[in-house]
Amino acid sequence: MTKLFFTAIEGGVTAARGFLAAGLSCGLKKKGPAPDLALIYSENPTTSAATFTTNKVKAAPVRVSMAHMRLSSGRAIIANSGNANACTGPAGMEHARATAAAVAAALKLRRSEVLVCSTGRIGVPLPVEKIEDAIPQLVKDLSTEGGADAALAIMTSDTVAKEFAVELKLGRHTIRIGGIAKGAGMIDPNMATMLSFITTDASIGSRDLKKALSEAVDQSFNRITVDGDMSTNDTVICLANGASPAPRIEAGTDGFARFQSALNAVTRELALKIVNDGESITKVIELDVVGAATYEDARKAARAIANSILVKCAWHGGDPNWGRIMDALGYSGVRMKEELVEIHYGGQVAVRGGTAAGTPVEILRRTMKERNIRIVVNLNIGRADYSIFTTDLTPGYVRYNMGE
Amino acid sequence: MTKLFFTAIEGGVTAARGFLAAGLSCGLKKKGPAPDLALIYSENPTTSAATFTTNKVKAAPVRVSMAHMRLSSGRAIIANSGNANACTGPAGMEHARATAAAVAAALKLRRSEVLVCSTGRIGVPLPVEKIEDAIPQLVKDLSTEGGADAALAIMTSDTVAKEFAVELKLGRHTIRIGGIAKGAGMIDPNMATMLSFITTDASIGSRDLKKALSEAVDQSFNRITVDGDMSTNDTVICLANGASPAPRIEAGTDGFARFQSALNAVTRELALKIVNDGESITKVIELDVVGAATYEDARKAARAIANSILVKCAWHGGDPNWGRIMDALGYSGVRMKEELVEIHYGGQVAVRGGTAAGTPVEILRRTMKERNIRIVVNLNIGRADYSIFTTDLTPGYVRYNMGE
Repeated sequence: MTKLFFTAIEGGVTAARGFLAAGLSCGLKKKGPAPDLALIYSENPTTSAATFTTNKVKAAPVRVSMAHMRLSSGRAIIANSGNANACTGPAGMEHARATAAAVAAALKLRRSEVLVCSTGRIGVPLPVEKIEDAIPQLVKDLSTEGGADAALAIMTSDTVAKEFAVELKLGRHTIRIGGIAKGAGMIDPNMATMLSFITTDASIGSRDLKKALSEAVDQSFNRITVDGDMSTNDTVICLANGASPAPRIEAGTDGFARFQSALNAVTRELALKIVNDGESITKVIELDVVGAATYEDARKAARAIANSILVKCAWHGGDPNWGRIMDALGYSGVRMKEELVEIHYGGQVAVRGGTAAGTPVEILRRTMKERNIRIVVNLNIGRADYSIFTTDLTPGYVRYNMGE
Repeated sequence: MTKLFFTAIEGGVTAARGFLAAGLSCGLKKKGPAPDLALIYSENPTTSAATFTTNKVKAAPVRVSMAHMRLSSGRAIIANSGNANACTGPAGMEHARATAAAVAAALKLRRSEVLVCSTGRIGVPLPVEKIEDAIPQLVKDLSTEGGADAALAIMTSDTVAKEFAVELKLGRHTIRIGGIAKGAGMIDPNMATMLSFITTDASIGSRDLKKALSEAVDQSFNRITVDGDMSTNDTVICLANGASPAPRIEAGTDGFARFQSALNAVTRELALKIVNDGESITKVIELDVVGAATYEDARKAARAIANSILVKCAWHGGDPNWGRIMDALGYSGVRMKEELVEIHYGGQVAVRGGTAAGTPVEILRRTMKERNIRIVVNLNIGRADYSIFTTDLTPGYVRYNMGE
């Protein structure tokens, strides 16, 4: 265990100095008024980094934010829930640009300093005038206390708002990193249907921030899966504004390593909050594939198991049906020898030498009845490993997603 | 439309001349006595062809049958339901070999002329003595009327037995092709969790029969998916015994083309019976991806859509939520341009130019309420196409598969 140099603190996206946020309802949600519009703003100039969905179908705000990131450093983030503004054609692009322009005007920023995010149903035209009309009030509401409102305003099927922040000692000074996230369905590694906004008052160059964020996302948001569906809107943005008096963070130094581990903690905690809030789930499984020939094999095997409908159904029932895990391993395409495979449920060995290990089924069943289960699959063929957090699949999930 | 030279006839695996079959209960099923053991036998020597699961985890009977096919032509098939004999280690291999040996002794065949198949739960030791004890009675029961009993005995979660047969005119004579199949869950292209046994009284060389079967399987069993899980036990076997007086069929002739189209009809009909009997399904979707850059792209796009949990949930609810299809296309990895995509539900255009085509949602909703729906996805980027039959995902499916 690495020694930790940071502590968890209250708050989320406004925990770091010099960041303001707000959230309100502008009427985008079908089911009646609920917060649906969030704004995050740095009082100081920033460096910034972002990762976006790798889905070839990208929502308009994703395309606009990608373009803005190439031109400027993001200083404000405007995000709406209730509408994904995806598959909305040229009009959708206009709406995303108009949203950024309205925020830029109100905050006296360049348009390219504003990043735009949307989440909600795909293919429905965005009623952009509702957003434009709400922006003056949203700007007026900006405050250092506004992080919680912003966290509420980006929720869709989430049942709880997701915030986390840490404080890190760097010499005589402190740095804070905090964030908010949303996401509950259409969650799959390599960016879930999720948004996450992270702010820090560290002073760090944009190249180093990109490196740190990329590593943090790979260890967190890219390692959760609820349903295997990767969305059109996934976005993680990190803004750093240097408002802390702590010395500048440079890659390769001890300070960078500490910053990285604190950032990892924030993204990992937010990712776990997402998977724990998966739509109608009843179980969270930490799945470790070890002993694989390569990292890519370990990742493929973990994904195949975690996204198998039949495996997820068995997990829901608390059925220690390891045959379905063996089956998924077999079709995952990874190098394996059936007779070398070992599977552990909790601390209990279920499979050894590719077949039943002889642990009494009542013991395995008791382990599988827990809400949080760790499953280790050892291919015993190499040294690579990969771990992922996933969930069961429930009748409630199907019912939630079958309707309009 | 190609002119058809064959007609559907009664029966299944004993429709062709010279084939006997039987089915009985030997006590393998947990939920009380039900048919669980089937035998199919050709009175004459045969040529034969088979395709097996490509899952790297292969059940013992699959490994034994693959080895037997390399040594001899199959003349008898022994198949049990209620136990997959998969992930059962060296004992499982012994049990599969012992089963073949017992049938060979009773029918005075070489052991390698007997093919063995199992279907049921993975990882449970096979009570092989129950099978051995039942074989004398099973052999005594063999008859030209026994096809229906064999079809019953291979059922697992199937709700109906699956048989189909055709008769084909070849000059002054006729050839018959008939088959049985099982499979309702763990169904995915490239061999579903399914067994299918096809018999024909045609006279055809084994190389030509292999070619014909490979083509037929690719057009049928490899194009159905219920849940995206490919099983450890999938097997399709075709036996030809030349009992028809019709002339020998040779690749490249008109007779071969007719035989191929008749065989395709049998495998396609059996595959459709499987998908129509998918566990707790309420809809069957024929999904055609057209206008893809390559055949492989068309296949990948079709698979991504057909196996998306979210798409399947929307289908269950009759929700014309085409955004989820766009999303699945986007992460499928195929070459595409969002703004070229067209999607049709039934005859109704839902998406044009990558966005809503303007067809009133009530019309789309009406189409999506049907049990049988044809969906066409046109990538408009090339000329390749692929079609697949799939189903919705229901709360009932999850409940069925969550328990022990």
